[in-house]
Amino acid sequence: MSGRFDSLFADRLGALKDEGRYRVFADIERLAGRFPKALYRGSPDAAPVEVTVWCSNDYLGQGQHPAIIAAMQASAGRCGAGAGGTRNISGNSHELVELERELAAWHGKEAALTFTSGFVANEAALSVLARQIPGCIVFSDADNHASMIAGIRNSRAEYQIFRHNDVAHLRSLLAAAPADRPKLIAFESVYSMDGDIAPIGAICDLADEFGALTYLDEVHAVGLYGPQGAGVAARDGQAHRLDIIQGTLGKAFGLIGGYIAGSALLVDFVRSFAPGFIFTTALPPVIAAGARASLALLSAADDLRTAHQAQAGKLKTMLAKAGLPVLPSASHIVPVMVGDADSCREAAGLLLQRHRIYVQPINFPTVPRGTERLRFTPSPYHNDRLLSELVTALGAVWRELYLPIAA
Amino acid sequence: MSGRFDSLFADRLGALKDEGRYRVFADIERLAGRFPKALYRGSPDAAPVEVTVWCSNDYLGQGQHPAIIAAMQASAGRCGAGAGGTRNISGNSHELVELERELAAWHGKEAALTFTSGFVANEAALSVLARQIPGCIVFSDADNHASMIAGIRNSRAEYQIFRHNDVAHLRSLLAAAPADRPKLIAFESVYSMDGDIAPIGAICDLADEFGALTYLDEVHAVGLYGPQGAGVAARDGQAHRLDIIQGTLGKAFGLIGGYIAGSALLVDFVRSFAPGFIFTTALPPVIAAGARASLALLSAADDLRTAHQAQAGKLKTMLAKAGLPVLPSASHIVPVMVGDADSCREAAGLLLQRHRIYVQPINFPTVPRGTERLRFTPSPYHNDRLLSELVTALGAVWRELYLPIAA
Ligand SMILES: Cc1ncc(COP(=O)(O)O)c(C=O)c1O
Ligand SMILES: Cc1ncc(COP(=O)(O)O)c(C=O)c1O
Repeated sequence: MSGRFDSLFADRLGALKDEGRYRVFADIERLAGRFPKALYRGSPDAAPVEVTVWCSNDYLGQGQHPAIIAAMQASAGRCGAGAGGTRNISGNSHELVELERELAAWHGKEAALTFTSGFVANEAALSVLARQIPGCIVFSDADNHASMIAGIRNSRAEYQIFRHNDVAHLRSLLAAAPADRPKLIAFESVYSMDGDIAPIGAICDLADEFGALTYLDEVHAVGLYGPQGAGVAARDGQAHRLDIIQGTLGKAFGLIGGYIAGSALLVDFVRSFAPGFIFTTALPPVIAAGARASLALLSAADDLRTAHQAQAGKLKTMLAKAGLPVLPSASHIVPVMVGDADSCREAAGLLLQRHRIYVQPINFPTVPRGTERLRFTPSPYHNDRLLSELVTALGAVWRELYLPIAA
Repeated sequence: MSGRFDSLFADRLGALKDEGRYRVFADIERLAGRFPKALYRGSPDAAPVEVTVWCSNDYLGQGQHPAIIAAMQASAGRCGAGAGGTRNISGNSHELVELERELAAWHGKEAALTFTSGFVANEAALSVLARQIPGCIVFSDADNHASMIAGIRNSRAEYQIFRHNDVAHLRSLLAAAPADRPKLIAFESVYSMDGDIAPIGAICDLADEFGALTYLDEVHAVGLYGPQGAGVAARDGQAHRLDIIQGTLGKAFGLIGGYIAGSALLVDFVRSFAPGFIFTTALPPVIAAGARASLALLSAADDLRTAHQAQAGKLKTMLAKAGLPVLPSASHIVPVMVGDADSCREAAGLLLQRHRIYVQPINFPTVPRGTERLRFTPSPYHNDRLLSELVTALGAVWRELYLPIAA
């Protein structure tokens, strides 16, 4: 290997290690039918041990649903492995066309467009809109996901950051901007690291007042909230007020891929001009088939959604009772604060080694420094026994490491 | 729908339509076991008709290989549908870890890293390298793919464009740049729209002379050239001289996903710092399992590679004999020049309607204006009868539309 710039790379990686935030990926093998159990390998050749996964974003365990697996297997048998090309050049598939129709209908929009991931959906859609609307100013929530930030930055449009979920601050920024400049407000519904939820209606009111386009990332909400699981905007009766609703097929859907939904014209515009959409191999029919099966199930999964919220609610209560510093999340996401990278990594290590509980430490740049945390995502399949085991194990780890307890 | 900026969107789309380059995606259903045949639907509710696909990038028909399909079906049954998280947060899978080890070994590199697509691999890897190496100047081939351009632009690093495959021009740019500035040369092996091939050895010589990092996109070559199909750099005995070899799982592999291979340190650097890698759901185990099966097959597919080149060679000869303006491609890609967007679209339309031959018109921005073309990708499964049918049909269309014949 040529070794050019090796010392630079080594220095930068060394700094990560010194800060305790060098990432080692846990080698996990999911087991269909046994969610949230999985096999964990401590090293490539180590014998696997069974662990309970507590940090999956497969929030409802859809990734193991027999109907979804069967739909994928049937599609693979019928249509083969991949798409074989970009959407425009032989890679469009009947399954994708149908999936997009169904996603649009689900969100009450005229059209939808799929991307290879939710990240690419945000990057491609936001960058093309902000770049192609002359003079556009983007107003972006301070806690927006890296993929939205990438889209906004890459557009080279002017942008302003409003304090997280702070409608008054957003209003003051909108009011201070020239009235004749086009405006776009980009935000999320459920913020995945704190678990709080945006005031969607109030932000849409501001958008109306100032004539701004609204772009809502519902990545951590689609399938989980609202009638038929169509998201928080739908739950709040605001879906019709959003110009773009963006979602992922990688979390509650249990697969991979992303999408936007909006007016036929806007979606056609993104379809026609976004390089991140145009110049890449399309999602395989097998993924589209799985996503259609997942969407059908999610649309009728009120029971799962109820159980999901119930287990999340129970866990929050149990953690608080045990004196553990759980954040006041308004959603299914249950973050427990640690406050520094090393302790966070140590706590996760003990949970895995001693208690066979797998939760990944969350550190910078995913969250701000000093707010390192463990982030738990109870699913309907994390039953009461698993909840108790977790709280007991956490108590033990907290005592062993002298970690801060709740104020 | 709110309709904000509708007139802007409508104007921009209208301009595309006026130029004859508004894209309508053909609705195709691939049929495993029948490649290159597929079902085509002229409208969402039309009865499907069988067509021959002539523009797939599933170059060897791997997408329909029974062993790959079986590997995917087995993995879906065992591990479920999706990864369930980002690589760092519960989405790493044993299949992906193994796939990366195998890809690295195939390219003779220490390490490999997978991404959700080849586009994302290029964008993420190039942008992080060019941004994080202080003072880096990128030297980029004029015909580089949109995904490399995105990575380079988004890095905000200084860049210079050298004339396509022009070593003398590259040398003069390198020589003119400050000797102490870090340099990175980004290029492709097989250029997918013209089918020509880069002088990899000569470019590596320059890299040595000027101390530049080399980044080679082998998206249209992996699986197709060289010992075990490891690409053109391997064929030319140059693979060890490339710092980064980038590839896709979406073309000859027949699936979806992308990767880079390089030194352990460099790959760890990209893994640790590239947002497009970090903040997105990992490839599903089912895709990784399919890719491993595909890699095993490709490594032993010299017979398929020979047949592939044979059919491409025959087609080029037959087209030239028929007086059709085939470009002098050095690869398996067979472009036939048309020269304007409207005629290109009309020719493709006639081929589909009259001859049940599906080939997508290639227009701006995929190729420069005035070089609109039809691009054929014969596979080993496009037998001699299909080649004859194609040449006959093209002759008829060329006469009907009075298209330019070869000089
Ligand atoms: C808020 C948010 N948006 C977008 C994404 C990207 O979605 P995907 O994983 O499908 O790329 C994520 C997480 O990965 C996210 O948390
Ligand atoms: C040269 C080149 N690089 C990268 C890509 C992107 O690869 P993928 O389709 O896996 O996103 C493509 C085509 O799509 C390409 O032609």
